[in-house]
Amino acid sequence: MNNPESIENVPANKKMQTAFFNLRSNKAFELFVVSIIVFSAVSIGVRTYDLPPLLIDVVGVLDILITLIFLFEIIVRFVGEPNKRRFFHSAWNVFDTLIVIVSLIPIEDSEMALIGRLVRIFRVLRMVSIIPELRMLLNSLVKALPQLGYVVLMMFIIFYIYAAVGSTFFAEINPVLWGDIAVSLLTLFRVMTFEDWTDVMYETMAVYPFSWIFYLTFIFFTAFAFLNMIIGIVVNVLEEEHQRERDEKAAESGEPTLLELQQQLIELKQIIESKH
Amino acid sequence: MNNPESIENVPANKKMQTAFFNLRSNKAFELFVVSIIVFSAVSIGVRTYDLPPLLIDVVGVLDILITLIFLFEIIVRFVGEPNKRRFFHSAWNVFDTLIVIVSLIPIEDSEMALIGRLVRIFRVLRMVSIIPELRMLLNSLVKALPQLGYVVLMMFIIFYIYAAVGSTFFAEINPVLWGDIAVSLLTLFRVMTFEDWTDVMYETMAVYPFSWIFYLTFIFFTAFAFLNMIIGIVVNVLEEEHQRERDEKAAESGEPTLLELQQQLIELKQIIESKH
Amino acid sequence: MNNPESIENVPANKKMQTAFFNLRSNKAFELFVVSIIVFSAVSIGVRTYDLPPLLIDVVGVLDILITLIFLFEIIVRFVGEPNKRRFFHSAWNVFDTLIVIVSLIPIEDSEMALIGRLVRIFRVLRMVSIIPELRMLLNSLVKALPQLGYVVLMMFIIFYIYAAVGSTFFAEINPVLWGDIAVSLLTLFRVMTFEDWTDVMYETMAVYPFSWIFYLTFIFFTAFAFLNMIIGIVVNVLEEEHQRERDEKAAESGEPTLLELQQQLIELKQIIESKH
Amino acid sequence: MNNPESIENVPANKKMQTAFFNLRSNKAFELFVVSIIVFSAVSIGVRTYDLPPLLIDVVGVLDILITLIFLFEIIVRFVGEPNKRRFFHSAWNVFDTLIVIVSLIPIEDSEMALIGRLVRIFRVLRMVSIIPELRMLLNSLVKALPQLGYVVLMMFIIFYIYAAVGSTFFAEINPVLWGDIAVSLLTLFRVMTFEDWTDVMYETMAVYPFSWIFYLTFIFFTAFAFLNMIIGIVVNVLEEEHQRERDEKAAESGEPTLLELQQQLIELKQIIESKH
Repeated sequence: MNNPESIENVPANKKMQTAFFNLRSNKAFELFVVSIIVFSAVSIGVRTYDLPPLLIDVVGVLDILITLIFLFEIIVRFVGEPNKRRFFHSAWNVFDTLIVIVSLIPIEDSEMALIGRLVRIFRVLRMVSIIPELRMLLNSLVKALPQLGYVVLMMFIIFYIYAAVGSTFFAEINPVLWGDIAVSLLTLFRVMTFEDWTDVMYETMAVYPFSWIFYLTFIFFTAFAFLNMIIGIVVNVLEEEHQRERDEKAAESGEPTLLELQQQLIELKQIIESKH
Repeated sequence: MNNPESIENVPANKKMQTAFFNLRSNKAFELFVVSIIVFSAVSIGVRTYDLPPLLIDVVGVLDILITLIFLFEIIVRFVGEPNKRRFFHSAWNVFDTLIVIVSLIPIEDSEMALIGRLVRIFRVLRMVSIIPELRMLLNSLVKALPQLGYVVLMMFIIFYIYAAVGSTFFAEINPVLWGDIAVSLLTLFRVMTFEDWTDVMYETMAVYPFSWIFYLTFIFFTAFAFLNMIIGIVVNVLEEEHQRERDEKAAESGEPTLLELQQQLIELKQIIESKH
Repeated sequence: MNNPESIENVPANKKMQTAFFNLRSNKAFELFVVSIIVFSAVSIGVRTYDLPPLLIDVVGVLDILITLIFLFEIIVRFVGEPNKRRFFHSAWNVFDTLIVIVSLIPIEDSEMALIGRLVRIFRVLRMVSIIPELRMLLNSLVKALPQLGYVVLMMFIIFYIYAAVGSTFFAEINPVLWGDIAVSLLTLFRVMTFEDWTDVMYETMAVYPFSWIFYLTFIFFTAFAFLNMIIGIVVNVLEEEHQRERDEKAAESGEPTLLELQQQLIELKQIIESKH
Repeated sequence: MNNPESIENVPANKKMQTAFFNLRSNKAFELFVVSIIVFSAVSIGVRTYDLPPLLIDVVGVLDILITLIFLFEIIVRFVGEPNKRRFFHSAWNVFDTLIVIVSLIPIEDSEMALIGRLVRIFRVLRMVSIIPELRMLLNSLVKALPQLGYVVLMMFIIFYIYAAVGSTFFAEINPVLWGDIAVSLLTLFRVMTFEDWTDVMYETMAVYPFSWIFYLTFIFFTAFAFLNMIIGIVVNVLEEEHQRERDEKAAESGEPTLLELQQQLIELKQIIESKH
């Protein structure tokens, strides 16, 4: 952390910082980076097909080129940052740097090669880190989660109880579906998506004829909790919308409040009373 | 019910009541109970796996410990309650007490052992009874039900008529799906969730080529009734939200109403008229 | 239609009309009719099980009894109606009368016996005709339909075009699913409910590799049209809600409008100006 | 483009233009065209059944007749248009003209015959071009799309990353489902519609036991993005609704704004102060 500060004191570097900051804020540069990300995404897609050896080599070379461009872009962004300490406060900067560093490590091992391919795929996520609108979308998504915390907890409790009951009673009927609590949770998630849930039910109804109660109550509870969650989000969104609207109206129109009108009436009354 | 009152008259018990009331309201104590419930939930989950005999014994001992802590907590809550008569008015207190009492009964019989396991599972529901936010969520869910009463009745009438028609016409085609009215109701619920509903339909269309009318009208009616239900809930929630918002605005802002402004104008007019 | 009027002129009948009108408006009588309908619904359900001969006879006798009570109730309603001409203006009265009349026809033929059973099932719908809240629910449902007219037409056009394309290209691949336009419409409805739609798609993709475009665009179009429909209903419902709220507020509060306040200000100004 | 203008200068043609403009705006003419389109749709449906040779000939003749009527209608619309340059600015006019022109080309080749049948099917879309309400519905649908642009992009990024991961890891397990990125995208769309998604999952879980994380996170992300999309549309629609409502209220009621009331109060004050 000391390094960047010592750099800042050197005027030549200061100049470079300003130059890089301008480059970084340049629309054309941003567009260039976006198009490189799109190109990198396409090259990932192309790799999933059977390619002739020549094309594989070409893609390999392009891949190194993309990594170098990304490395250059990260350096530009880092040097261009006026406050070096803040650079790593942004989770997106950390994510971008990690992706580039891991891309740079030469991988020979076949085990590691898989991780290399994964990292290359995650480069597509850089699209989100570059385009501000997508970043905002993701942020709003992440911000909405804690508000739903209790509904999610409630839903998990419902799932857990049903999974415990299911693996207690049905484990011997079908160990693949109800063998332990983890597998039961997955089976219940499947039932919630209505995916072949009647097959699961008919199987247990052959042993416990009243087990349809288990499935129907589960579907009702989760459907209701899910509905609650959606309504919670909608109400929240609408409220924010109303608030924003009201603030805008107040800021724009220059309309007086009723309180101001009342003040003026009182003033008027005092004038009349005092004058006479 | 006489017992608690006689206890209240003894000063020593009074002191204990206050001490227990404070303990009960203590945040750390609540957190301790929540963590015990979480731990009890985990031990239920662990039991669904094949365990070595030693671990089974450990879990058994822990289970007794959990029961004792729960017993202690219920006693604290009961003694800490200033008005003993009210304690059992809360459905959650009754539920908690029942769970603890049934847990205390030593069960040997294999039939009963299953009930013992069920009771242990339902302990997880104590999470809802302990955390006020979850209790509120469940209450709002229960309160919403009667409002939907007529829509639910309407939906049941639709289901019942279609089940009666289905078991009249299709019982001989597939007795497993349409044998009697109970089974038909279950089959219709399956059709409503779109789970392999075309298999059910194609089977009856082989005998009655126009039976697709039966399924399509059923899907339309239930979808419409369901939509009505959701809209009913949403409108209701939004209305409450608006009401709350309006009340808040009125309470916070100290803004005069238009009626008050009118009063002031009338007053002003009277002053002017009387003075001259 | 002449008969009722001639009856009305006879005082004895007038008295009877009033008595029957009172009986009809009686809460206990309504409750009695509702319980008879519930009982009739239960007897329909019981019939779908294999019954011993004795019970079949009992149900048969009860059925005649129910028919007679319904006949009596219709007569009470008809005689109790002050304006006989209006009686058959209500679709529900016509429905009730038809159900009772068809129930009265003695049916021997096995073909007709099925219709007799159907009529008996439709008696359950009398629940809707008796309970005003359910009648309102159904009315609001029927009233909402024409508003959605154009969206439904749009959806039908989408279905029709895709069905025509489907039966043109896929008829030879699977005549059961795409043989003619009627069957294709049913298959598309199945695709819309996501019921084994990939099986349908993979089958045609074996011949036309790009037929996934057909299915995906269809799903997108119908999903969008459906979404539009739901939003249309929601916006409509909310608007009515707002209108009702505004009307209520205006009626309740006795608050003056801004226009009235302005009138008072103008008046005040005139007084001040004239006095001096 | 020069032709129409030279025509316009000839008075006889001017007269014809007015006559055709009137004919085109005639309600009866519009109804006639709509009924021809409906008839053309029915004839398309009829063709999908096995018909006796005579009926095929009849349908063929009717088809030529429909094409001629459509040709006549397009000419009426074109000649009736006062500003000929504008005629082809409307996408619907271009669409209608293309459909008619392609219908006029005599097709012998069996390859081309298929295209001929497709064009005939797309004639049904003329229903949308003729009925203004449907045209508005489609326009609102098209207008809503760009607003959703970023959510759709986000969703595509999610799909793309999961498809790349899927075809990297699962390609050898089942090449039909995960062979390349295009096929993986289709498989993920299938998973999103919950269509036999557990079969897809269980297959990969046999090799990678933790691959359920892949499917569950995918379902959560797409469900959340989809929810976001719907809420985005709803909020948008409601906002427009509110705006429209406010504008209407302002236009209708003639109510003064609070600002106007304030102006009057200030005026009043000045009068009082100046007079004394």
